[in-house]
Amino acid sequence: MQKQNILNYVDSHVESFLDDLKAGLRIPSISSDPEHKPDMAKMADLLSGRMNSLGFQKVQTIPTPGHPAVYGEWLHQPGKPTLLIYGHYDVQPVDPVELWTSPPFEPDTRGKKLYARGAVDDKGQVYMHLAAISAWLKSENKLPLNVKIVLEGEEEVGSEHFEELVKTHRELLASDYILISDTPMLQKGLPGITYGLRGLAYLQLDVRGSSADLHSGSFGGIVANPLNALTKMLAALKDDSGHVTVPGFYDDVVEISAEEHANIARLPFDETNFAESIGAPVLSGEEGFTRLEQLWARPTLDINGIWGGYQGPGAKTVIPAEAHAKLSCRLVPNQDWRKISDQVASFLKSIAPESVDVTVTAMHGGRGYLAGIDSPSIQAAKSALAEGFATEAVLIREGGSIPIVPMLAETLDAEVLLVGFGLPDQNAHAPDENLDLENFHMGIRSLVILYHKLSEIKQV
Amino acid sequence: MQKQNILNYVDSHVESFLDDLKAGLRIPSISSDPEHKPDMAKMADLLSGRMNSLGFQKVQTIPTPGHPAVYGEWLHQPGKPTLLIYGHYDVQPVDPVELWTSPPFEPDTRGKKLYARGAVDDKGQVYMHLAAISAWLKSENKLPLNVKIVLEGEEEVGSEHFEELVKTHRELLASDYILISDTPMLQKGLPGITYGLRGLAYLQLDVRGSSADLHSGSFGGIVANPLNALTKMLAALKDDSGHVTVPGFYDDVVEISAEEHANIARLPFDETNFAESIGAPVLSGEEGFTRLEQLWARPTLDINGIWGGYQGPGAKTVIPAEAHAKLSCRLVPNQDWRKISDQVASFLKSIAPESVDVTVTAMHGGRGYLAGIDSPSIQAAKSALAEGFATEAVLIREGGSIPIVPMLAETLDAEVLLVGFGLPDQNAHAPDENLDLENFHMGIRSLVILYHKLSEIKQV
Repeated sequence: MQKQNILNYVDSHVESFLDDLKAGLRIPSISSDPEHKPDMAKMADLLSGRMNSLGFQKVQTIPTPGHPAVYGEWLHQPGKPTLLIYGHYDVQPVDPVELWTSPPFEPDTRGKKLYARGAVDDKGQVYMHLAAISAWLKSENKLPLNVKIVLEGEEEVGSEHFEELVKTHRELLASDYILISDTPMLQKGLPGITYGLRGLAYLQLDVRGSSADLHSGSFGGIVANPLNALTKMLAALKDDSGHVTVPGFYDDVVEISAEEHANIARLPFDETNFAESIGAPVLSGEEGFTRLEQLWARPTLDINGIWGGYQGPGAKTVIPAEAHAKLSCRLVPNQDWRKISDQVASFLKSIAPESVDVTVTAMHGGRGYLAGIDSPSIQAAKSALAEGFATEAVLIREGGSIPIVPMLAETLDAEVLLVGFGLPDQNAHAPDENLDLENFHMGIRSLVILYHKLSEIKQV
Repeated sequence: MQKQNILNYVDSHVESFLDDLKAGLRIPSISSDPEHKPDMAKMADLLSGRMNSLGFQKVQTIPTPGHPAVYGEWLHQPGKPTLLIYGHYDVQPVDPVELWTSPPFEPDTRGKKLYARGAVDDKGQVYMHLAAISAWLKSENKLPLNVKIVLEGEEEVGSEHFEELVKTHRELLASDYILISDTPMLQKGLPGITYGLRGLAYLQLDVRGSSADLHSGSFGGIVANPLNALTKMLAALKDDSGHVTVPGFYDDVVEISAEEHANIARLPFDETNFAESIGAPVLSGEEGFTRLEQLWARPTLDINGIWGGYQGPGAKTVIPAEAHAKLSCRLVPNQDWRKISDQVASFLKSIAPESVDVTVTAMHGGRGYLAGIDSPSIQAAKSALAEGFATEAVLIREGGSIPIVPMLAETLDAEVLLVGFGLPDQNAHAPDENLDLENFHMGIRSLVILYHKLSEIKQV
C-alpha cells in the first residue's frame, strides 16, 4: 500500500470531495414526505452515477414497496475479505424551517462547518466513503479488498422494508465485514468505534375502573380510581436506587467486566456540563454504576407517556373511567425483549388491585448488539482511526438502538463495525444540521487506512 | 292548622300543579348557552308571574353580571320564623340530544315519570314548593310562617355571582331557616334529609426534568424521567389500605360517633348492585369504614387528571421534559381546604427527587357542611317527611360539595335544611332526565307539613 500517496491524494482533493457532497445535499431527499418521492429517485440516480463513475459493477436500485436502495460492487480482490458499506441517502424533514440560519438544502460553509440537512446524517458520511474509495482508485487503481455498497432510502422512516430486502438479497450482500458510518463520536477530537447498542422493549398499560367517568363527590372514597392505581403500579417498577424491581429483569444482563469498567472510566464525561446542556437540575441513574455505564451497559425502565382524566385548564372533579401509560425498557445485549416484556407484564398484573381491570400490551422491541472488543476488525478500526486523526481512538457504546445492526449481523453472518464521524452537537434531526470539516477530512483519511487494515486480517 | 284540609287540596290539584311545572319545563333555560339568554329571561318572568299570582310581595329579578335571580316574599306572620327557600331555574345543556327518548323541552309522561330537562334538577322541586305554598294560601289564605323565595339562574354554571348577590342583599334575604330541595334521596321510598356535605381542595402538580423532550436511547438511564418521578410522588400519597399518608391530613377530621355509625349502618346499600351500576369489578375504599362512611364522612384523595409524554398510537421513545397531574381531596366538615392544600403541597415537595423541579399549585377549594342532627329544624323535617311519605325518614349525607350551602349558612347566619326529592336514577345532567310523579305528590304533601312544623319551632 502506497499509503502516503493515497493520503496525499485525499489532502489535495478535500475541496473536490466537498463539492461532490454538496451536490448530494442540494437534493431534498426527505423519505417521510410523499411530495419528495421524485427527489428520492433523483438522489438514488446521483449515487448510482457516482458509483458507475468510480468503476463499480452491478450498480442498481433495488426496489422496495417504499423507497429503493442503491447498490454497487467492486470485487477485484479475490482471496481478500469482502466489505459491505451501509449508509442511507434519505434525510429527516426540516421543520421548523424558520429556525435554520441558511436554507437546509443550500449547503453553506460557516467557520469550519458545512450546514445542510443531511450534512452529517448520513449523506456526509456516505460521501466520506465514496471519497476514500475514489482516493484509492485514483492513486492505486484498485481497492485493497472487495467492496460492496448498499445505501438505504428509508432509514429515517424506520427501515420498514430493509430487513426483507436484505433477506431477499442475501447472496448479493454477502460479506465478511459490514461498515456503518452513522453514529456520533463521544466528542470532537476523540475518534471512536461503537461496539455496543442497547435493545428495546415497549409496552402499553391500560387500566379501567368503571364503564364511564364518575363524579368525585358522588363516588370518591368507594371506587378505585384508575389513575391512582396506575401511578401506584408504575411507581412499583423501580426502587429509590433506580433499580428495576421486576422479578427476573436482570437475570440475563452480562455484568460489566473489570476491563470494560476501566475502559469506560477513562472516557471523558462532564456531569455538570451534560446536565446543563439538557436543562436538568442534576443527573440521576441506577446506583452503583458510572453515568456512561448507566447509559450504555445497564437496562432502563422509562415511562414514555401517560394520560387519563381531565387535562384542560382549571379544575374538573372527575374520577376517570380509564388511565393509560406507555413504557419502555432499553435493554443490554443478551436480554431478550420478548422475555422482558413478559416479565414486566406479569409483574404489573401481579400488583394490580382487584378493583380495576388491567391490560398490558407488548407493543414491539428489538435486540441489543455487542461486538467483541478484542476482535481483529475492531482493533483494525481503532488503529486506523488513531492514524487518521493522529490521536488515540476509543471504544464506546451507544444508549440507543439501531435495529438494522443486529439484523445485518445475523442475516449476513458478518461482523458489524460502527465507525461514525458525527459529533453530539451537530444537530442531526434538528435545524442547522452541520458537518465538522476537520472530521470530514480526517474521517476520509481514516477510512483509506481502515480499508487497508481490514484487507490484511487473516480470514479464519 | 287545618292539615287534612290542605293535604286534600294537594291531592285534588296534583294535575294542575303538574301543568304549572310543564309550562316551566317547556322553556329551555340553559344558562351555559348564550343563545338561550332570552329563554333565561322568559323563565324568570314566568316564575315572577307565578309568585305575583300567589300574592307574594317585592317580586323582582335581581340582576347579576350573568343571569338574574328571581325573588319574592310573603311576610305576614310577625313573630313567626322566616324561611328562605332557595332553588334554581336554570338547567343543564341537553347534549347528546339524540339519546333522549322524547324532546327534552317537551315534557312527556311515560309510566309514573315525567321526562324533560329540568324535571328534577331543579324546576320540578322549585314547583313543588310553589305548589305547597299555593295549597296553603288557597286553603287557609295564609302561610304558617314568613317565606322568602330566591331562585338562582346560574347554579349549573358554578353560581359564579351568587355569593356576591347574597352579600349585597343580606337584609332582603335575612331568614332563620334556609330550605333547599336540590339533593337526591338515598333511594325510592326512603325520604331523607341531607345533613352533611364534603368540602374540596383541588391542586395541580407539575414536574419538570429537562428543558426539552429527550430521546430515551441517548439519555435513558442517566436523567430523571419526570413521568417516573410524578407517578412515584402520587403513589406515595395513599397507602395500600386507602389511608392518605400526608402528615396532618386527618388532624381536623371529626371522628364518626357511635350514634352516627349506627344510623348509617341502618341505611340500605347494595354493594354488588352499586358496583354493577357503574361497571366496576368491585368497590374499594379506606379500610375500617363502611361504604357510606367512606363516601360521606371520610376525606379522600383522587387524581383527576394526568398527562405527559407521548399519548398517540404506536410507540415513541421519548423521555418527556414535563409531567402533570390534577388531584383533589374531598374533605369532611372541620377540615380547612387551605390547610389541607398546604399539607399536600408540602408533602409532595418533601418527597420530590432533587433531580426534577416540582411545582404544586393550590387551585381552589371549599368548605364542607354539617348540620347538628338533633337540631329542631332537622327533627321537624324528619317528621314532616315521615308524614308526607307515610314511611320513616332517614338522615343522610352527601359525598359531593354544594359550595353555596356553607356560604348561605355563614352569610345569613341561618340553618340550612337540605330536603331533596330527586332519585339516584333520575338522570340529572343526562339524557332522559325525569321526575318521579309519586315523589312529586308526596314531596308537596311533605312540604305543606314542613312549613307548619318549622313555624312551631320556638325561636331562641
